[in-house]
Amino acid sequence: MAQAAEPPSGTRDFLADDVRRRKAAFDTIGAVFERYGFDPLETPAFERLEVFAGKLGEEASSLIFKILKRGVHEASGEADLALRYDHTVPLARVVATYGSKLPSPYKRYAIGPVWRADRAARGRFREFAQCDIDTVGSASPLADAEIVGAVHDGLEALGIADFQFLVNSRQALHGLLEAYHVDAALGDKVLGSLDKLDKLAPDAVCAELVERGLTTTTAEGLVADVIAPDTDRVRKQLDTTQRGRLGLAEVDRLLELTAGLPADRVVFAPQLVRGLDYYTGPIFEVTATGYPGSIASGGRYDGLVAALGGPDLPACGGSIGIERILAIQTVGEAGQRGLDVALTVLGAEDDLMRLAAEIRAQGLRTSVYLGSSGKLAKQLKWANDQHARCVLIYGPDEQQAHEVTVRDMESGEQTRVPVAEVAAYLRNRF
Amino acid sequence: MAQAAEPPSGTRDFLADDVRRRKAAFDTIGAVFERYGFDPLETPAFERLEVFAGKLGEEASSLIFKILKRGVHEASGEADLALRYDHTVPLARVVATYGSKLPSPYKRYAIGPVWRADRAARGRFREFAQCDIDTVGSASPLADAEIVGAVHDGLEALGIADFQFLVNSRQALHGLLEAYHVDAALGDKVLGSLDKLDKLAPDAVCAELVERGLTTTTAEGLVADVIAPDTDRVRKQLDTTQRGRLGLAEVDRLLELTAGLPADRVVFAPQLVRGLDYYTGPIFEVTATGYPGSIASGGRYDGLVAALGGPDLPACGGSIGIERILAIQTVGEAGQRGLDVALTVLGAEDDLMRLAAEIRAQGLRTSVYLGSSGKLAKQLKWANDQHARCVLIYGPDEQQAHEVTVRDMESGEQTRVPVAEVAAYLRNRF
Repeated sequence: MAQAAEPPSGTRDFLADDVRRRKAAFDTIGAVFERYGFDPLETPAFERLEVFAGKLGEEASSLIFKILKRGVHEASGEADLALRYDHTVPLARVVATYGSKLPSPYKRYAIGPVWRADRAARGRFREFAQCDIDTVGSASPLADAEIVGAVHDGLEALGIADFQFLVNSRQALHGLLEAYHVDAALGDKVLGSLDKLDKLAPDAVCAELVERGLTTTTAEGLVADVIAPDTDRVRKQLDTTQRGRLGLAEVDRLLELTAGLPADRVVFAPQLVRGLDYYTGPIFEVTATGYPGSIASGGRYDGLVAALGGPDLPACGGSIGIERILAIQTVGEAGQRGLDVALTVLGAEDDLMRLAAEIRAQGLRTSVYLGSSGKLAKQLKWANDQHARCVLIYGPDEQQAHEVTVRDMESGEQTRVPVAEVAAYLRNRF
Repeated sequence: MAQAAEPPSGTRDFLADDVRRRKAAFDTIGAVFERYGFDPLETPAFERLEVFAGKLGEEASSLIFKILKRGVHEASGEADLALRYDHTVPLARVVATYGSKLPSPYKRYAIGPVWRADRAARGRFREFAQCDIDTVGSASPLADAEIVGAVHDGLEALGIADFQFLVNSRQALHGLLEAYHVDAALGDKVLGSLDKLDKLAPDAVCAELVERGLTTTTAEGLVADVIAPDTDRVRKQLDTTQRGRLGLAEVDRLLELTAGLPADRVVFAPQLVRGLDYYTGPIFEVTATGYPGSIASGGRYDGLVAALGGPDLPACGGSIGIERILAIQTVGEAGQRGLDVALTVLGAEDDLMRLAAEIRAQGLRTSVYLGSSGKLAKQLKWANDQHARCVLIYGPDEQQAHEVTVRDMESGEQTRVPVAEVAAYLRNRF
């Protein structure tokens, strides 16, 4: 029983403060996305298993929670449904399902839980919220810039001040490989090594590149290019191939279209690769002082919706790492909420219920004492445990005088107020 | 593919309007429950399978979605987790997990999806929201009255006007059976028959009671008692046994404590049984003009938390049938949200992105055109499809004059406004 009383491994119970804090963050982000004209979408917690078939890589597929067939089919031990692994597969399915009934382009946001049977670890959960924004059906660079703007405003609205968008382009990365005459077959592996530059020393990455088949000169040149503080060096290399020029133009267009954001908020980061290989155009990651890793990321992924079973539409999107942000923003009063008014019960319950209703009608968070003790001291302890801002006492004395004693729980000050005036008195007071 | 593109049987995709409408309803109810001092609780979507073991009846158990073990254990075809069937089993588990860390009494609400592998049918879903409010750890009749009050205010906040609480007591029902000397072994079956009085004619129920072993006199007496428009008849019967008097006292206390609600909102309904047999005290159901069946229900269930694996604490609660209500309240503008401002794109994209940001900073829902057409007519069609309230046109003419044409999409009226003043102009206008 002891073990069974815990929530399942990798999941969490959210008690009052956490629910409020999370809801406030989700609502904040949602309001920003709405302001950009994105529409909310909520898909079921599970999809037919075949929706995932062949859509996710081997590793991702092994992390899917599968649901057993029901009824007489249960004995087969087979699954036919799977919990949502991310918001992207359902998005592709929805675009396939509703097609022209959706606005074009379809700008949607999805904020809600996804489930992955990952090895549970500190800060890694099997049920966690993802917070995605995507535009399906636009190839315009304005769509990419809008995603950056919306993610930017979302992070700012969450109270994050010191952050930066690192921007690159898949085309630029491939152009760079071409400039160095890297064999196409090696390309992805080379990018995989460059992607480690945020964790490993340049020397170590060079060594790995050589191991993967590059010459020492090429490896050193590549690494030196992408880590140079001045991007002129890499720009010159990119300028030598058509693909490189194309990629650079994508980056520069995104920088221009987001130039209205605070200075240095969006910068060209030629070393940025992004692990996921489905990106086809501009990509970005957001780093912030005080937060480990990246707190948001995204990019253009023109082939993905079709690969996931939807129509062949260009698309781009971004994701705010809301769990990572919430893990850092643990302190703060956003979630805490005590009672405004606690009513002790010393007889005259009928009057008290009416009084409580009147006070609630003023919008105040109000509760009557529901315990079994008739002792005022015990009831005051309850009110204190509820972080009540004030307590109403309606004992025999007060009842006779048709008055209520209002006790301020911070100052301890007590005031007698006529019953008929209590609600108005409290409204003025708060 | 056609079938796979649909959401799984019994589930729904919620597109923009539906998400907004549902969220507005959930937020409305949540705000009412908060005002009553209830705290939100969110438990994981799934629990360990053993948490359900022996806790639900046979029928309910067959409706549980079970999750297959993962990794090397997947091949066993065995399940170890199950999707949340209701909010009550998780509540009992949470009370067991956190014990004294929770406020006492623990007043919590839970609004969120549950999953049941029921045969999908019109209006019956396999994924649907439940909206529960419960107080664990109080035996006080004030706790019951508070549930009634909170559910009442929640329904009112949802805009339901003409509704009524039908109140009865499990004790009263058992007292009535005693008054008629009904064999204890027959009790539940007899109550089951009485429960059909809202669907079957009194004669049919009488016939069923006789079939179940009652004499015709007893059956007719029972039915006549509970359907009599005047409750004096049943009150007299209840007064003949101790249990009946106890039940009647429970009902009358609840009526007294909710006397502050509009007249006739809460009435004694001696024919009310409630299908679930875990209730131990006062019970209620809410009917409303224009809504089929009941739109809310609840009662006291003192033994249930212990039966579900939690500590032995008294408890009472209620549930708002939010899906049933949302199914009726389909029309209305709560969910619809067009753009406030649509920006056409005829060059000068950089300026437009800045302008869009300025307008958004006024809190207006704003989007730029992301399509590929350079034709104004096509862009205006897009703005119209987005239900935009106004469109900004920034063509070569306007660019030269540093002005923007603001077109009201309802009246068709167009106004030229200097670029620097557009945001302020729009703020004043909306």
